[in-house]
Amino acid sequence: MTTPIMPKTDAAELINAARIRQGLTWATIAENIDAPLVWTVAALLGKHPVPATKATAVVELLGLGEGVAESLRQQPTRTPDEAATSDPTIYRFYEALDVYGPALKALIHEEFGDGIMSAINFNIDIRRRPDPNGDRVVVTFDGKFLDYNW
Amino acid sequence: MTTPIMPKTDAAELINAARIRQGLTWATIAENIDAPLVWTVAALLGKHPVPATKATAVVELLGLGEGVAESLRQQPTRTPDEAATSDPTIYRFYEALDVYGPALKALIHEEFGDGIMSAINFNIDIRRRPDPNGDRVVVTFDGKFLDYNW
Amino acid sequence: MTTPIMPKTDAAELINAARIRQGLTWATIAENIDAPLVWTVAALLGKHPVPATKATAVVELLGLGEGVAESLRQQPTRTPDEAATSDPTIYRFYEALDVYGPALKALIHEEFGDGIMSAINFNIDIRRRPDPNGDRVVVTFDGKFLDYNW
Amino acid sequence: MTTPIMPKTDAAELINAARIRQGLTWATIAENIDAPLVWTVAALLGKHPVPATKATAVVELLGLGEGVAESLRQQPTRTPDEAATSDPTIYRFYEALDVYGPALKALIHEEFGDGIMSAINFNIDIRRRPDPNGDRVVVTFDGKFLDYNW
Amino acid sequence: MTTPIMPKTDAAELINAARIRQGLTWATIAENIDAPLVWTVAALLGKHPVPATKATAVVELLGLGEGVAESLRQQPTRTPDEAATSDPTIYRFYEALDVYGPALKALIHEEFGDGIMSAINFNIDIRRRPDPNGDRVVVTFDGKFLDYNW
Amino acid sequence: MTTPIMPKTDAAELINAARIRQGLTWATIAENIDAPLVWTVAALLGKHPVPATKATAVVELLGLGEGVAESLRQQPTRTPDEAATSDPTIYRFYEALDVYGPALKALIHEEFGDGIMSAINFNIDIRRRPDPNGDRVVVTFDGKFLDYNW
Amino acid sequence: MTTPIMPKTDAAELINAARIRQGLTWATIAENIDAPLVWTVAALLGKHPVPATKATAVVELLGLGEGVAESLRQQPTRTPDEAATSDPTIYRFYEALDVYGPALKALIHEEFGDGIMSAINFNIDIRRRPDPNGDRVVVTFDGKFLDYNW
Amino acid sequence: MTTPIMPKTDAAELINAARIRQGLTWATIAENIDAPLVWTVAALLGKHPVPATKATAVVELLGLGEGVAESLRQQPTRTPDEAATSDPTIYRFYEALDVYGPALKALIHEEFGDGIMSAINFNIDIRRRPDPNGDRVVVTFDGKFLDYNW
Amino acid sequence: MTTPIMPKTDAAELINAARIRQGLTWATIAENIDAPLVWTVAALLGKHPVPATKATAVVELLGLGEGVAESLRQQPTRTPDEAATSDPTIYRFYEALDVYGPALKALIHEEFGDGIMSAINFNIDIRRRPDPNGDRVVVTFDGKFLDYNW
Amino acid sequence: MTTPIMPKTDAAELINAARIRQGLTWATIAENIDAPLVWTVAALLGKHPVPATKATAVVELLGLGEGVAESLRQQPTRTPDEAATSDPTIYRFYEALDVYGPALKALIHEEFGDGIMSAINFNIDIRRRPDPNGDRVVVTFDGKFLDYNW
Repeated sequence: MTTPIMPKTDAAELINAARIRQGLTWATIAENIDAPLVWTVAALLGKHPVPATKATAVVELLGLGEGVAESLRQQPTRTPDEAATSDPTIYRFYEALDVYGPALKALIHEEFGDGIMSAINFNIDIRRRPDPNGDRVVVTFDGKFLDYNW
Repeated sequence: MTTPIMPKTDAAELINAARIRQGLTWATIAENIDAPLVWTVAALLGKHPVPATKATAVVELLGLGEGVAESLRQQPTRTPDEAATSDPTIYRFYEALDVYGPALKALIHEEFGDGIMSAINFNIDIRRRPDPNGDRVVVTFDGKFLDYNW
Repeated sequence: MTTPIMPKTDAAELINAARIRQGLTWATIAENIDAPLVWTVAALLGKHPVPATKATAVVELLGLGEGVAESLRQQPTRTPDEAATSDPTIYRFYEALDVYGPALKALIHEEFGDGIMSAINFNIDIRRRPDPNGDRVVVTFDGKFLDYNW
Repeated sequence: MTTPIMPKTDAAELINAARIRQGLTWATIAENIDAPLVWTVAALLGKHPVPATKATAVVELLGLGEGVAESLRQQPTRTPDEAATSDPTIYRFYEALDVYGPALKALIHEEFGDGIMSAINFNIDIRRRPDPNGDRVVVTFDGKFLDYNW
Repeated sequence: MTTPIMPKTDAAELINAARIRQGLTWATIAENIDAPLVWTVAALLGKHPVPATKATAVVELLGLGEGVAESLRQQPTRTPDEAATSDPTIYRFYEALDVYGPALKALIHEEFGDGIMSAINFNIDIRRRPDPNGDRVVVTFDGKFLDYNW
Repeated sequence: MTTPIMPKTDAAELINAARIRQGLTWATIAENIDAPLVWTVAALLGKHPVPATKATAVVELLGLGEGVAESLRQQPTRTPDEAATSDPTIYRFYEALDVYGPALKALIHEEFGDGIMSAINFNIDIRRRPDPNGDRVVVTFDGKFLDYNW
Repeated sequence: MTTPIMPKTDAAELINAARIRQGLTWATIAENIDAPLVWTVAALLGKHPVPATKATAVVELLGLGEGVAESLRQQPTRTPDEAATSDPTIYRFYEALDVYGPALKALIHEEFGDGIMSAINFNIDIRRRPDPNGDRVVVTFDGKFLDYNW
Repeated sequence: MTTPIMPKTDAAELINAARIRQGLTWATIAENIDAPLVWTVAALLGKHPVPATKATAVVELLGLGEGVAESLRQQPTRTPDEAATSDPTIYRFYEALDVYGPALKALIHEEFGDGIMSAINFNIDIRRRPDPNGDRVVVTFDGKFLDYNW
Repeated sequence: MTTPIMPKTDAAELINAARIRQGLTWATIAENIDAPLVWTVAALLGKHPVPATKATAVVELLGLGEGVAESLRQQPTRTPDEAATSDPTIYRFYEALDVYGPALKALIHEEFGDGIMSAINFNIDIRRRPDPNGDRVVVTFDGKFLDYNW
Repeated sequence: MTTPIMPKTDAAELINAARIRQGLTWATIAENIDAPLVWTVAALLGKHPVPATKATAVVELLGLGEGVAESLRQQPTRTPDEAATSDPTIYRFYEALDVYGPALKALIHEEFGDGIMSAINFNIDIRRRPDPNGDRVVVTFDGKFLDYNW
């Protein structure tokens, strides 16, 4: 009897529960599957399809079933969670864009001409930068410039 | 007779018109007033109050009146321009947050504990990174970590 | 005892699960039921009623039950999935309309007079066009012109 | 005395008024400036910056002033006109996406893998296809495939 | 043990399932309970309370239980299904109002004075009108005029 | 010097002012330009382009200028006035659709199959029907059936 | 040369300015034109057409021009001022409906059957009721019951 | 094992089911628990906490369990049911406020000064007023005046 | 000739312009008119009617005209400026309510019973509290408890 | 077999049910776990992660299971409950911000310069202040000032 594929949100909840109960960090999982850190978290939360070998590695590491791996392998529909955008930790990033977005646009056009930073040919990284006045969160967006090219 | 202070959006339009007609880049203006590049563009577009000497330097460089300088000096209300968030060049940044925001949150909590990246004690930079497969837009968010501290 | 008809979203999930587990492409299914490719996918995702013989062919090919076929035969309510419109792969089409919609309107009126392209007497196709600079996605909307005809 | 640059919406209104009073079609203008038809209309309606020589050619053809040309040359903020999306001629395109968007997404992933049709490295065309049952509006979206490429 | 009354949406789903499986048209049901056609469909979909004898007749005709009849008899809360207003078949009616609503208002005031067409003392009918250029859907709204009567 | 074409909302205001001051009914104007009543009001309120001879007849009848006629001749963007949909006289029509829309959809599909009532190949009429219990507003929507025709 | 009719919001502002400068209460104006109090205020704020003799009486009392009277006589579009619904004095009425609306509905159906309180064949009054614990605002809605009458 | 308290919406559904099946009116219940009519209905629908003795009386009268009484006793979160505000019977009250709200505000300020009618120190009543032209629904809002009192 | 009363937003802009050009703090103005600090700023920004003597004192202090004083004396419609709620300085207060609002509600009910903190019989204060780890903004809301009192 | 972690909303419901049935106040719980009152309620309602020893203390006090404690320990996503913001007890706080927010902003800038009150380095307190005219709810927001610090 055919059953639906486990929704990616369910898979993410199971992964998170197993991860917490086993005391594993996201960093450990990323290393374990040999994938970039932010990509790994985003993918396990349901934002990217996970290649089969990595999906298998994740469920083996966490002792989860094949149903979770099958779910991870699927192509996601990348729908934003509107409610989460109000979480203060996430909201500050949106607020920064509200303040600096038009300036970024002006400077992209000045430096590159008419076009965009790709969000597809793109990677993003986060790191801690020690600072005597309080350590800092440093996030880098890195996307290919695409010009309006008729 | 008292007149209202020129709205910052009007000042921004005049600055932009003068800048374009005189063939000045944002980078030249930023250098000229000795201020960081993204900060300068954001401030002249109306998102930050501009210190008096820098405001004067801008209007002198661009041949604009004291009314513009007065406007630049004011404390802004930093209201996002909702319509502009749909501009493709700006939208890609929001889209990246829609995809990676929850992952950034998870990693901030893993690395720093419960808290946020400040968007106030914060700076942002943009640069071009040459790449044989097409140059890249690299944007760095750099904010102090603030923990939930009752 | 009467039971409700299976919702089309449930039928779509079962079809997709069976399709993936059996390694069948959408193209194979479309061929199998002798129907146009985009029409087939849209219909199996719940956007069109499926004629009885084709519905039966689908459930036989995929080993699904009569409940799925019954669901497929129903007249749908074609409600857009608002959340999905933010998926980057889908969003780019909306973005293109945001940029080019008014131009399309102007040109329809110039060429045909006051009226519309029908979205009912309509078909749509997608194909890959090889290109040395990167293959291209080519989507064709083809609808009957309807003039405002009092 | 510095004056603001004419808003692109004002330039578009003047271009349209002159065009109509002189009995010129969009097609004639596009030919005259040697540019693709849909691009030309979109650009003159304010959606693309117009290269200087083409901007000058437009204002000369239509007997408009340099202020219009200056406006045309500017980098636009490509904000959708939300109200216009309800115009029946434009709405039908959105409706088609509401019905077929998820199917297009599924087929892009099946044919190309995880990624999108670029709306930047992109062109669009419209033509009339004669049909004995009523001529048809045929619109082709043609964008480079971009894969999610970390 | 008290149980909740079956929601009208559940009753409507069961009625529709039974109706389809038994091959009964809405018209047959309306005749069977001796009620106007549009009223009958609206009422069985949950928009009107159904008199007890008619509710019983419906469940007997369709072989459904008393729970369905009990649900039908209840006073509904007439909440619009916002999602359904985007279904193309329903949307065209809203679109017609968007285009002609202000004209209808002007003509009601010209003919009757300040007031409204009642939507309560109201009936609505739909019929097919044969036409050599394609048959037509004819829908008639018929409501009592109510004047603003302080 | 080129001037913009008068917006259709301005033309409508001038027509209405002249109409009221001269004591002319909409019915008189419609007769005068030999056009259907609802079409005439909708068109003069800005929802349809008005053929040149009729536009001229209107401005001559009302003693208005060529600028109004020029405005009337233009192709409109048919954007709904969202605020007006809450006017009680207009709202009752939307409310009737909220209550009866799904029933109309079900009956169109039962009678005609999968498809819609066209809102383009469409006309609408309003009349007073005398009734001893209070006269009635009778509005008829009459649109060609269009089937989903791939 | 035809000029537009003064918008009702402009007329309301002029009436209010004259009323305040001359120290006239709304009650005095209502008496002066021999009309109910709430009706008078609503009508002068633009929510009802004002009969010609009353419109003339108002402008004579307040020393305003015929343009104001002409505006008052027009049929309004009764659009709610959404922003004003958040004014605390107005909001409390909406809040009361949010809390008691479903109860009023239940009791109307219990007492009268399926139907509504008309908001057209309707009047509303406000008075002060002295109370030793603080005087009270008493507002009475009084509308004809209309039953769903097919 | 601890179980959650029954949600007030569930309690309301059970009360309503029992009430209908036993043929009890809201008025009977209100009398039975010796409480005002509108208060009783609002409270049993979940908008007020019900004192313990009255909660017990209700469940005894209707033969419901202690879980319902426990639910009734809880402090509610008084969230409006947005969908229900579109129900025609409820909507007419909102429509009346849309039309008369600003007038009520003006008259409260004229009579009482700057302040509001309390919606907390407040009661509301509904009654039928016989009228030869059709009986009327009369609803009275009665709230203490509160002045802006710094 | 009657002219409209100056809108409160215009009066606020003139007050702010004069205040800034004369180097006066809000605190000085509040002292000068002998009124509480937050009340004064809110009132001059248009949120409260200003008593005549205080209104006169303000315009004399700032060298503004009687038109400003007249505007200040008017009863405001207290509409929130939705855009301003996204200003980071204001947003943090809303964010704090998003996090702590339900807790405040629970504690008000625990301490006082069913009811609210009045926002009308209410004052608010702001002060700086020195702190070696960085000075603090301390804002106190102080409102009368009002119980639900039928 | 891995199970998901109990959602914080479920944990909050169980805590509240146990708390009420055992007759424990929030204040007692806060004392018992030696934590500030508002923090405790907010945290148990799901807005803060609860340290392990406090989480254990809560479930022991209330006789709940380890699943509740595990849920309490998790990092929350702090999403506002939009519906609850309309609850009158909570709404009054938002209303106060709507009225006084811009004044608070002006005074923060006057006293501290450009910056914000932190909502992260922040605490909030509520207390009852006896008053002969009715006791008062006093709520204090206390957050570190953060200046815009590039």
